[in-house]
Amino acid sequence: MKYRFASRMEKTPRSFIREILKVTLDPEIISFGGGLPNPALFPVEALVEAARDVLTEDGMSALQYSTTEGYLPLREYIATRYLKRTGLSLSPENILITNGSQQCLDLIGKVFINKEDPVAIERPGYLGAIQAFSLYEPEFHDVPLLEDGPDTEILSQVLERYSPKLFYGVPNFQNPSGISYSGEKRHEVAEILSEHDTLFIEDDAYGELRFRGEDLPLVSSYLPGQGVVTGSFSKIIAPGMRMGWIAAPPEVSEQVVTAKQASDLHSNYLTQRIIYKFLTDNDLDLHIRHIREVYRHQRDIMVTMIEETFPPDVTITRPDGGMFLWATLPPGFSTMDLFHIAIKENVAFVPGDPFYTSDNGSNTMRLNYSNSDEERIVEGITRLSKAIRMMLKN
Amino acid sequence: MKYRFASRMEKTPRSFIREILKVTLDPEIISFGGGLPNPALFPVEALVEAARDVLTEDGMSALQYSTTEGYLPLREYIATRYLKRTGLSLSPENILITNGSQQCLDLIGKVFINKEDPVAIERPGYLGAIQAFSLYEPEFHDVPLLEDGPDTEILSQVLERYSPKLFYGVPNFQNPSGISYSGEKRHEVAEILSEHDTLFIEDDAYGELRFRGEDLPLVSSYLPGQGVVTGSFSKIIAPGMRMGWIAAPPEVSEQVVTAKQASDLHSNYLTQRIIYKFLTDNDLDLHIRHIREVYRHQRDIMVTMIEETFPPDVTITRPDGGMFLWATLPPGFSTMDLFHIAIKENVAFVPGDPFYTSDNGSNTMRLNYSNSDEERIVEGITRLSKAIRMMLKN
Repeated sequence: MKYRFASRMEKTPRSFIREILKVTLDPEIISFGGGLPNPALFPVEALVEAARDVLTEDGMSALQYSTTEGYLPLREYIATRYLKRTGLSLSPENILITNGSQQCLDLIGKVFINKEDPVAIERPGYLGAIQAFSLYEPEFHDVPLLEDGPDTEILSQVLERYSPKLFYGVPNFQNPSGISYSGEKRHEVAEILSEHDTLFIEDDAYGELRFRGEDLPLVSSYLPGQGVVTGSFSKIIAPGMRMGWIAAPPEVSEQVVTAKQASDLHSNYLTQRIIYKFLTDNDLDLHIRHIREVYRHQRDIMVTMIEETFPPDVTITRPDGGMFLWATLPPGFSTMDLFHIAIKENVAFVPGDPFYTSDNGSNTMRLNYSNSDEERIVEGITRLSKAIRMMLKN
Repeated sequence: MKYRFASRMEKTPRSFIREILKVTLDPEIISFGGGLPNPALFPVEALVEAARDVLTEDGMSALQYSTTEGYLPLREYIATRYLKRTGLSLSPENILITNGSQQCLDLIGKVFINKEDPVAIERPGYLGAIQAFSLYEPEFHDVPLLEDGPDTEILSQVLERYSPKLFYGVPNFQNPSGISYSGEKRHEVAEILSEHDTLFIEDDAYGELRFRGEDLPLVSSYLPGQGVVTGSFSKIIAPGMRMGWIAAPPEVSEQVVTAKQASDLHSNYLTQRIIYKFLTDNDLDLHIRHIREVYRHQRDIMVTMIEETFPPDVTITRPDGGMFLWATLPPGFSTMDLFHIAIKENVAFVPGDPFYTSDNGSNTMRLNYSNSDEERIVEGITRLSKAIRMMLKN
């Protein structure tokens, strides 16, 4: 028979990262391509205990259907932690538990985006958001990221000209670039947004992973009723459990619940219970401090190796947290070409192209440092440097 | 600020069942309203062991990000079981693991339905499918269910006239009606469909719960390349783990994977591993046999009680499996009115209205027997009978 697919399926970029991850399954290849946390940091023992306790103490309830919003004590924990960590006051009633923070993006697309609706996004932007939103067929308008956050002049122009329904951003340690909004930029972005009916979608998946400097307030703190915050346990506990959350103003939250219910009824309830048990029986701050130390070390090794081995006309970002840094080759060179050379040298990364919704950043690339130990970072950057030098000479 | 929601949000029916479940939180109320499995049948002990083994033996991998399609051994297990149980041959490559079978419906909507596309559905139809599809704004065309399956004359007319992209059906122990397609009807439906470019979405969430008669082939067995089968571990292991699957022809499967990746990357990998461990270390057939025995007993008690106490002009279905039966009051009476009387008698059910996409079945209602023990069924039906008699006399 002839399959008649929806038109939205033609607009979804096939994930290049997914293709890359396949190439890099070869254990000979050192991959800075994925976006994986370091699995040595997963709290396996504590999760064994949490799972056992939840199932033996309350298995019949933990295995049953549950509410769409999610386990209330877990939502209360999340609200309390935001208040403590960032000063942002959220009501647990307006927090919904999702399948990782990726699902937040799908739900936001569902709730807000009609075909051809204007949506503003950072350039470069998070690929997962581009993919999720693309299924709702928006028109993207991008706002370049400078070293300290979005180019506010262009942000103003985009808001003025297109009145986007949403502006999606990752103010802390952005994926892919590692860039964070400065304290001043946060104020400025909020001020500009407050003059428009544009909701700020603040993806804070990496916020807890700051290893340098002081925590800064969420942009949403300055935007009452106008910010939607998404977060995730993937980077602070474990991604295979697919647990994230979305905190939204009440009117938005109500629509998100309707969309979530139609999408999959509710998130894995057993896992919600296990995570909550883990959080109450363990010292999360201590655990996160450990993750930060490890990632800072891995980031420092990578930056140092790059400084020592890359040609000087390759520039990089120097992130204060998160899992990625961003490298830029001199104009005219393509990281897609570099990828093929690098693979022959047994090292991989993600070329920048898929992170752009308009004119591309062909000479950019994303490097992940969270999932490689010191030895592999040293060896991998040495190989990558060799590949870059081979290409730049051509 | 003014929130500008997408137009699709206006078309989604707010779940009346969700509202009902709130009313019935009162422990005094005996509820036949929910769609919950009997939690006493959850294999808690075996899951404790499976969780411990997976985490201790392979925690770092089980907690990491994984592939969008899902854990291959689990998909192989599902394929093998279909072959053994129903004779349907499926390739594991074309099976994708989802967050319960509800997510299958969302993914199908995403992959196929453009605004105003024609979609055929049973009348009454599964509320979760109506909700999931509604977010993609189709035009529904309904096909009445007779005692042995869809009215094939009307099915032919609908296919001829509207050429729906999809026909969604639940051939085994339908939710809400408890009706199953007869062996003959399965052939007939397949034959009619095979003359059209209409994909059959075969929701088989209850297929394993047959407690009377012989298993019948899936309709998709007769429709190579034209059937999509969805299934779930919710009814045979536990719903709180949100694990289901979708098996589709290769070309469809590829699109479903793209949609799934954009929606939430992949399903909870730890849970996939725990379920697979449970399946390999335990006798699933024995476990399911036990569930069937319990549900047959509960169904028999409910049917007997209804026969003994309901006025004779209230008719019911007599399901051979699954979790629900369907009652119809004489014409002109409303189960929504009955609901309010029944609540005062401390008994609840789901009025039929939300299961209809066109002219409603105001005099119908769904009764769940899987989640009440003998004593509560006897007492609850006695109360309901009293409420019905009060209403019919008015």
